[in-house]
Amino acid sequence: MTQPPTQDNPGEFDIIRDIFAPLSESQAGAYNLTDDAATLSPPSGTELVMTKDAMVSGVHFLASDEAGHIARKLLRVNLSDLAAMGATPMGYLLAAFWSHGTDPDWIRSFAEGLKQDQREFSIGLLGGDTVSTPGPLSLSLTAIGHVPNQKALRRNGAQQGDLLVVSGSIGDGALGLKALRGELEFLNPDDLSFLVDRYHLPQPRLALGTAIRDLASSCIDISDGLVADIAHICDASSMAAVFDVEKVPLSAAAAKVVAKDAEFLTAILTGGDDYELAFTIPAAFESRLSDLSKQTQTELAYIGKIEAGSGVRVLKNGTAMALPTAGWRHF
Amino acid sequence: MTQPPTQDNPGEFDIIRDIFAPLSESQAGAYNLTDDAATLSPPSGTELVMTKDAMVSGVHFLASDEAGHIARKLLRVNLSDLAAMGATPMGYLLAAFWSHGTDPDWIRSFAEGLKQDQREFSIGLLGGDTVSTPGPLSLSLTAIGHVPNQKALRRNGAQQGDLLVVSGSIGDGALGLKALRGELEFLNPDDLSFLVDRYHLPQPRLALGTAIRDLASSCIDISDGLVADIAHICDASSMAAVFDVEKVPLSAAAAKVVAKDAEFLTAILTGGDDYELAFTIPAAFESRLSDLSKQTQTELAYIGKIEAGSGVRVLKNGTAMALPTAGWRHF
Repeated sequence: MTQPPTQDNPGEFDIIRDIFAPLSESQAGAYNLTDDAATLSPPSGTELVMTKDAMVSGVHFLASDEAGHIARKLLRVNLSDLAAMGATPMGYLLAAFWSHGTDPDWIRSFAEGLKQDQREFSIGLLGGDTVSTPGPLSLSLTAIGHVPNQKALRRNGAQQGDLLVVSGSIGDGALGLKALRGELEFLNPDDLSFLVDRYHLPQPRLALGTAIRDLASSCIDISDGLVADIAHICDASSMAAVFDVEKVPLSAAAAKVVAKDAEFLTAILTGGDDYELAFTIPAAFESRLSDLSKQTQTELAYIGKIEAGSGVRVLKNGTAMALPTAGWRHF
Repeated sequence: MTQPPTQDNPGEFDIIRDIFAPLSESQAGAYNLTDDAATLSPPSGTELVMTKDAMVSGVHFLASDEAGHIARKLLRVNLSDLAAMGATPMGYLLAAFWSHGTDPDWIRSFAEGLKQDQREFSIGLLGGDTVSTPGPLSLSLTAIGHVPNQKALRRNGAQQGDLLVVSGSIGDGALGLKALRGELEFLNPDDLSFLVDRYHLPQPRLALGTAIRDLASSCIDISDGLVADIAHICDASSMAAVFDVEKVPLSAAAAKVVAKDAEFLTAILTGGDDYELAFTIPAAFESRLSDLSKQTQTELAYIGKIEAGSGVRVLKNGTAMALPTAGWRHF
């Protein structure tokens, strides 16, 4: 059932003690990873928010990606889920399925990436498990945050007439993956590396998530793709949404890609991996968007609105675009 | 990056909506798995306890094991970690990496196993993720419980002179695996199926864990093997332990195996997969063991004691046994 460790193949306990336990040092209740479980208390007046994402090499990231980038993306996509709920992160648990023969130095680089982001987001490792697999590297992370009692942002509160707003720029992650696959060779190196960075290192919109907690009627992070994730809000809220493709915020690099070939708009609208927030606010709050943008240092774009009905319509020059099945799926 | 679903290969969203969302129905804060994250509050005066284990087909269970058994074992090994901390379970998150082409009926049987144990342990599904992998079926589960503030059982409190106690019977899990591999054909069918059941369906000692919270100086669940797990207590407590192999409680089936060939004692002592509790109590509490056993309907055996020093000695007829490296490891 298990394999004994060798000098070249350190055991689970060595990996945990030498590489992962240091990541738990600042985390009260992690007990330096020497106990069966961790303990955690939400601050007074708050409840816990928890999310768990899974990633597989070759499916959710490229086997050639840097270890530190993979680690940080894994952490950040989970933090993005917390941002979408308006939560403040506290810590995380990690399950790592290392492919047989994984170089311990690779694992150290992976942990170094986690360490870097722990500092950036003021969180620590609470616990987890590390096992070996004959399959590809697979990872599961559980992120835990807190939110004032009953104040978690949900997907199901969008109302007819609400404004549909997105943060940052859309489509860079999907285009970054295309860049890595050599499909955007017409771009200059700076634009290519901007898009690749956006693919590798999404920026969870934590400050924005907490700032809109009392303002937004619904919120989601854009992981499956802009259209699919707005459809999730519509489904949960029993509403429809319509937005103008011209209002979807694009980075300078993405704008160049679309200028070269408008077909790339499909990838931008459905490609996923944005980790921006899409949210709805009552129309009466429109005037607050500019202050909100300054306060959170986050670009915000009003792209459309919520209507009665169901489904998502994307208008280009006022005409509904034909898009492939909204929401490509991970299974 | 992702694959579109087909009629024969339902998508992630279908799997979640049709098979897993029903498992979250009774769980407040799971939002029917339609949101980015779940919310959870520990009862007043308690803190949360969380643990996360990972399992891989062919490493931690047999590919031929029944789906429902795999699901229940996954849940139970995590509940066993909560038991070792003296915690009461509340809910869990699941990450499933299904092998490409996994039959949805197999996934339904897996979920049915979870449903059965949710009823048994009064818990529900809080959230998680489901993805597809070219590798073997892999699973990660995060279990969450609560414990009165600052009352979690730890591994690091064993004191010189404390008594070493174990619950239930030891070695059945390791022998059950041997039975499945056809190595115990000399046993009768009833004994074989007893051992196999113990391997497939460990019994997390939750009632015992909560009952010894104010009594035990240290506690661990026996997953790596009796000797290795007692060594974990010794390491964390900076103590040594000594116990008599004759006092280690064996089931009738295990006793028959040892009577046939005493070499099987090694597997019993080091094989893991017991999911019983090993704990230490001050010697003054010895008289309470019998009441504790009745109250929790759990057999308890006093097998040895804690001494100054380091490491674990196992005595057979008063002489230290030579055992392979204590603690086979999962990496």
